[in-house]
Amino acid sequence: MTLSTQPYKGARDFYPEDKRVQKYMFATLRSAVERYGYEEYDAPILEPLEMYLAKSGEEIVKEQTYSFEDRGGRQVVIRPEMTPTVSRMVAARRQELGYPLRWYSIPNLWRYERPQRGRLREHWQLNVDIFGVAGVAAETELITLVHDIFAAFGAQPDMYEIRLNHRVLVDEILGAYLGLNESAQHTIGKLIDRINKMDRSEFTGKVIAAIDDTAVADDVVTKLLQILDATSLAELPEELQKSDAYNELSVVISQLESAGIRNIHFDPTVMRGFDYYTGIIFEVSDTDSDNNRAMLGGGRYDGLVGLFGVSPVPTVGFGWGDVTLENFLRSHDLMPELQPETDMYVALVGDVQAAVQPMVAILRNAGARLAVDISGRKLGDQFKVAEKKGVNEVLIIGESELSSDQFKLKSLKTGDEQVLKLSDLVAMFQK
Amino acid sequence: MTLSTQPYKGARDFYPEDKRVQKYMFATLRSAVERYGYEEYDAPILEPLEMYLAKSGEEIVKEQTYSFEDRGGRQVVIRPEMTPTVSRMVAARRQELGYPLRWYSIPNLWRYERPQRGRLREHWQLNVDIFGVAGVAAETELITLVHDIFAAFGAQPDMYEIRLNHRVLVDEILGAYLGLNESAQHTIGKLIDRINKMDRSEFTGKVIAAIDDTAVADDVVTKLLQILDATSLAELPEELQKSDAYNELSVVISQLESAGIRNIHFDPTVMRGFDYYTGIIFEVSDTDSDNNRAMLGGGRYDGLVGLFGVSPVPTVGFGWGDVTLENFLRSHDLMPELQPETDMYVALVGDVQAAVQPMVAILRNAGARLAVDISGRKLGDQFKVAEKKGVNEVLIIGESELSSDQFKLKSLKTGDEQVLKLSDLVAMFQK
Repeated sequence: MTLSTQPYKGARDFYPEDKRVQKYMFATLRSAVERYGYEEYDAPILEPLEMYLAKSGEEIVKEQTYSFEDRGGRQVVIRPEMTPTVSRMVAARRQELGYPLRWYSIPNLWRYERPQRGRLREHWQLNVDIFGVAGVAAETELITLVHDIFAAFGAQPDMYEIRLNHRVLVDEILGAYLGLNESAQHTIGKLIDRINKMDRSEFTGKVIAAIDDTAVADDVVTKLLQILDATSLAELPEELQKSDAYNELSVVISQLESAGIRNIHFDPTVMRGFDYYTGIIFEVSDTDSDNNRAMLGGGRYDGLVGLFGVSPVPTVGFGWGDVTLENFLRSHDLMPELQPETDMYVALVGDVQAAVQPMVAILRNAGARLAVDISGRKLGDQFKVAEKKGVNEVLIIGESELSSDQFKLKSLKTGDEQVLKLSDLVAMFQK
Repeated sequence: MTLSTQPYKGARDFYPEDKRVQKYMFATLRSAVERYGYEEYDAPILEPLEMYLAKSGEEIVKEQTYSFEDRGGRQVVIRPEMTPTVSRMVAARRQELGYPLRWYSIPNLWRYERPQRGRLREHWQLNVDIFGVAGVAAETELITLVHDIFAAFGAQPDMYEIRLNHRVLVDEILGAYLGLNESAQHTIGKLIDRINKMDRSEFTGKVIAAIDDTAVADDVVTKLLQILDATSLAELPEELQKSDAYNELSVVISQLESAGIRNIHFDPTVMRGFDYYTGIIFEVSDTDSDNNRAMLGGGRYDGLVGLFGVSPVPTVGFGWGDVTLENFLRSHDLMPELQPETDMYVALVGDVQAAVQPMVAILRNAGARLAVDISGRKLGDQFKVAEKKGVNEVLIIGESELSSDQFKLKSLKTGDEQVLKLSDLVAMFQK
């Protein structure tokens, strides 16, 4: 039987040129996030099934995740998201940790779904969370950080859009303002969450169908659509402009605007699912129409740590997937040309594999990243390997070079050659 | 129901202080390996079950790994090792890749076992492989690299021991030299693999039981024990000193010795299991008796790429787990004091959360990693959080500091305070 060479469906092999892209993205994320004082954590990729059942039904969890029973009879899941895990870890040391607690991670996550553009079965996701801050200074900080991460990748504000909403404001709109009963609120909330996946008439029809009192249905839909079309808080009806939720949103938006962040606006259609959020929620969209998924999303979820048997901790966080990030960078031509991890290829002439070692050791100690061709093949073949590796500089060493301390360094890009002593080479790497 | 805060059995949560250790170890590994021209790759944590069946029976694979059926009916495994995966990836691009091909990875691996010291259910493992080199220059390079990695961690040669053997030499010993039939060779090979897990008399008894011809059994055991006690190639019987395998071992050992690597010796008990190795095999042991497992192991496996329907590629590689590495560093007092990812904690006096932002942005742009305390709590409480984070420098900012451009920077370790302008602080981070 011949084994397949393909990776598992919906997951990716990372050849060195792919891994380099991931390393560039992760290093840029880490550097930007650490400037805000966030510290990295991690946890096992397997978690107990019950952790995900707290907020969703067993059937949904099992259908959408990789879950199985281990040989000890435990129901386990390959984690589909990091939020329950980080809440578990904070709960475990609730008393010892110092707040505000700033943590981040870039975990590998799996979900069982049909793979599509921007959404694979396997991905990595930057998770940034701040614990212990009840006020909206936390939201302002995280959204400012998102803006700075984009800047670190060289992105301009017209390439993405930050959209904000508030879960309590949504409740106020659907409840007190539109006068819907709980069941209709729930159904219509879910419809709003999917509003961009259907046309307006389908949406309207489904909203009407969800309203028991047909006499008011048309009126409710008119009022709802008016709200959903709002692109700023000022467009909301006056009676909605008095709540704490409205005020929180208004404070965050004005703080961000005065920090110079302009590509931000209120968007009442942002819902972020119906699970653990309790306050401000936000999403960032790519303005390139090829990338129609939210690139990242987050918000306040004050209740999750408390599910682990300790007092709740106010929390705001966001998650940013590597797949949408890479699509964004490529669509907006922001992916830099990345260099291989190897500085120089050492091509050997004749049987000098052993003789060359002391010199190579000196260069490595000076910081050089050197691949020595130990194939024993012709010089032309050795050059081809350097080219395949993407290494531009080839150092040629044979017996005469070793005895004369005169080494030819050839640039594959320009064809230029220079003759250098070992001490010149050492100096090259030391600076 | 209260959810447990514990991580999955045999796996680890990495709180920031633990993650820092892992980051230090991985950065040191990456830097050392890249100096030899190795490039990083990666692959999905899920692989098809059949990939592992090629060299082991289904029962063994299923018993010792995390395997399950996905919702599409595919038998999948959370990878227990990286070697089959990297062979798959090389096979997929057999023709396009340039050889010698030098690749490394630090994958997360899982095995279903009773957790014990040095061996958990989940671990990470540095995997370094060189493809396309038939000669022992590949083995010499990899063992030299192992030695350089130890040096990068500050290890001295008396802290570890590199032990070498050759799979073909083992065959020659058990076959031509001792005259055992295939079944006895196989059984005794497995016993040698576990020789350090039993006492000498138990081993001898089991070897005798495996030999059909009782008339020669005692003689065979005597000869075998004589060989197994050898600590250098010269101690082997003369008739074993003529083979290619003996010669390869001898060349590698003398090349390493002339490169100044002395903590290396021939060890006929090194077996590395009975699976895919085809030539020289090696292991490194920790000389601290608390750490009695092989820290790393590897060898030549020329046949694995060929299982994926392409011509075989000569390959040498090794794997080095993070758990044994961390034990080694701690036992030999080599773990450095690691600094948190945050340079400075910013404590706020009064309501200056918004007012402080422009200044903080300037410092971050200068490269500072700053955590701003947005809790609104008393200064003393803010200091305690800095201490819990392990951040030594606290910058105190209130309205008067902002208006006078005079900021107090306090060292929590020494209690020293200095007063600095914003420009002084910027200069501090820029250099």
